[in-house]
Amino acid sequence: MSRLIYPEDLDDLAVGAAILGTGGGGDPFIGKLMAQIAMGATGPVRLITADELQDDDFVIPSAMMGAPTVMLEKIPQGEEAVAALRALENHLGRKATATSPIECGGINSMIPFIVAARTGLPVVDGDGMGRAFPELQMETFHVYGVQGWPAVVADEHGQHVIIESQDNYRLEWLARGVTIRMGGHATLLDYPMTGKQYKETAVRGTVSMGLAIGRAVREAHRQRIHPVDAVCRATNIFTGLGEDQGSRLRIEFQNENLVAIKESERGQDVLATVPDLICVLDSETGTAITTERLRYGQRARIIGIPTPDIMRTPEALKVWGPKAFGYEDVEFIPLERKFQDYYRQVGVPEGKRIT
Amino acid sequence: MSRLIYPEDLDDLAVGAAILGTGGGGDPFIGKLMAQIAMGATGPVRLITADELQDDDFVIPSAMMGAPTVMLEKIPQGEEAVAALRALENHLGRKATATSPIECGGINSMIPFIVAARTGLPVVDGDGMGRAFPELQMETFHVYGVQGWPAVVADEHGQHVIIESQDNYRLEWLARGVTIRMGGHATLLDYPMTGKQYKETAVRGTVSMGLAIGRAVREAHRQRIHPVDAVCRATNIFTGLGEDQGSRLRIEFQNENLVAIKESERGQDVLATVPDLICVLDSETGTAITTERLRYGQRARIIGIPTPDIMRTPEALKVWGPKAFGYEDVEFIPLERKFQDYYRQVGVPEGKRIT
Repeated sequence: MSRLIYPEDLDDLAVGAAILGTGGGGDPFIGKLMAQIAMGATGPVRLITADELQDDDFVIPSAMMGAPTVMLEKIPQGEEAVAALRALENHLGRKATATSPIECGGINSMIPFIVAARTGLPVVDGDGMGRAFPELQMETFHVYGVQGWPAVVADEHGQHVIIESQDNYRLEWLARGVTIRMGGHATLLDYPMTGKQYKETAVRGTVSMGLAIGRAVREAHRQRIHPVDAVCRATNIFTGLGEDQGSRLRIEFQNENLVAIKESERGQDVLATVPDLICVLDSETGTAITTERLRYGQRARIIGIPTPDIMRTPEALKVWGPKAFGYEDVEFIPLERKFQDYYRQVGVPEGKRIT
Repeated sequence: MSRLIYPEDLDDLAVGAAILGTGGGGDPFIGKLMAQIAMGATGPVRLITADELQDDDFVIPSAMMGAPTVMLEKIPQGEEAVAALRALENHLGRKATATSPIECGGINSMIPFIVAARTGLPVVDGDGMGRAFPELQMETFHVYGVQGWPAVVADEHGQHVIIESQDNYRLEWLARGVTIRMGGHATLLDYPMTGKQYKETAVRGTVSMGLAIGRAVREAHRQRIHPVDAVCRATNIFTGLGEDQGSRLRIEFQNENLVAIKESERGQDVLATVPDLICVLDSETGTAITTERLRYGQRARIIGIPTPDIMRTPEALKVWGPKAFGYEDVEFIPLERKFQDYYRQVGVPEGKRIT
């Protein structure tokens, strides 16, 4: 059922999307400000469910590509995404009827709200990752047969590039090259698709999930629960990873956290791997600590969130399983199954839930 | 007046265009084969003069970008340029009525003949350089106000990228980046323009010049003249640079030969500089030796060809005078003026003409 998203809701979404970013995806802060400014001028944005799409609707997702930290100094001018949308519509001879995130984690949770506010389009509640990932082919859209092109990459000087590729991996390669030439950060529209395609391939409800996580963190104090516990309740699929004393949890990451390995006297045990979400949260506030902001001495709690089944099929794991990131010897074991085995061995700590 | 160009004419054009490439521009060989194959299937191509263009004609020049030597291993599949033309026509909503070289020196002399053979379009006898240059803004089209975009960069996999820029220098930067991502070599269409713009900004007659130089070299033996002298007669604007004994001529190049400096006991004397053409010819055959094929021990004769006035205005020299290539202390002195002074000092050798 559709609902209206107001500028202040984006404060919650920013907190939730940062957690879903699993260490990557970029701080949503500047994106949130841009979306709030756009919505402040035009009013709330309608968030619709995938079910509300007609088969012949036309969804043009909107995002940013490149290094989010570059954006802190090379600030977007605000019109890029809409200009890129118009360029893609003209190129295709077809108008978008909705936009959507391609990536619900990190700053890319925000860009569709900028586009929606400025165009009146609704945002579809879903994305192609259910988290953050570093490359364009790492999308359920790609895994289940949607072509990523034509795509548009646009910069703050009013330049844009339309890419017609033949392959989503080549699209990633070309769009990345253009983004680098544009200074390391750019606006990106890709995977234009019908409503039918979206319904068949998207990870659903991930914007709502981000909003719910953020709200839970905000309301935790009033409810007298710990914010990290509030995150766990909100996701309803939580498994704690990092609370044992006397052992060490090593997290390896590329852009996002990829594997969490428990190191103890008994040896090494891979507790969680990509595509399940490995999130590093501030112990006090429950908010995400992104990889570039990790510092020695920080107090953190680590949680794992099982990713939806659509992200775990054999064809999906080929694109983003541990092997896709170079972990040749690591098999993906669903987090909840791993933890059933794990707790069977070590005993379930008090207060720990397993779903 | 328009004339028909037959496949065998391209043998002459290849020889002439290599000389006009002034050391760069790439060996026309593969481009010639591609054009001859295309023309063999469809017949001769019409070469028209700029005067024959109507003001509302629409010229889409065609070319290649990147490293010509890459092309020796990464061979085009032959359809790129026409696919790129159609993409640009669709993007602009306007059909081309002619194509043209943007660069008459080197392999880019040939690409328009591939497009023309496959589409039936005429080739306009002119270009934007009267020679070869390494960057997209180094065009009379740019100097005299034509915008280079929208441009299309296409590869042999059927991919293409449409670039909408805001500045011809940025266009160069983006198109170069895309070309690199496409493997270092790609097909390029840029500077789409009206017949009126072409007539106002192009260097005229440069395809004919290439054809004439090549024919002169071919016929030199029958006419019992030296092929290098034949080149000089064909250009009618020749100044010899490198025939003195007991001194050394140093040629500095980037992609193309940029400055020719006479080194002797009396010191250094800059004899010729970009944008005038500095051509290294094989002493025996009169054909061009490109910079990447220069080898120790080769016998060469060096000639200078003054470039047309449209290439020598103050605004043009800002883009491609010696300073644009980093020679801060070198002023452009027109070749023919320099040689008047030079021969006044050293005496005109027998048989030497100055125009």
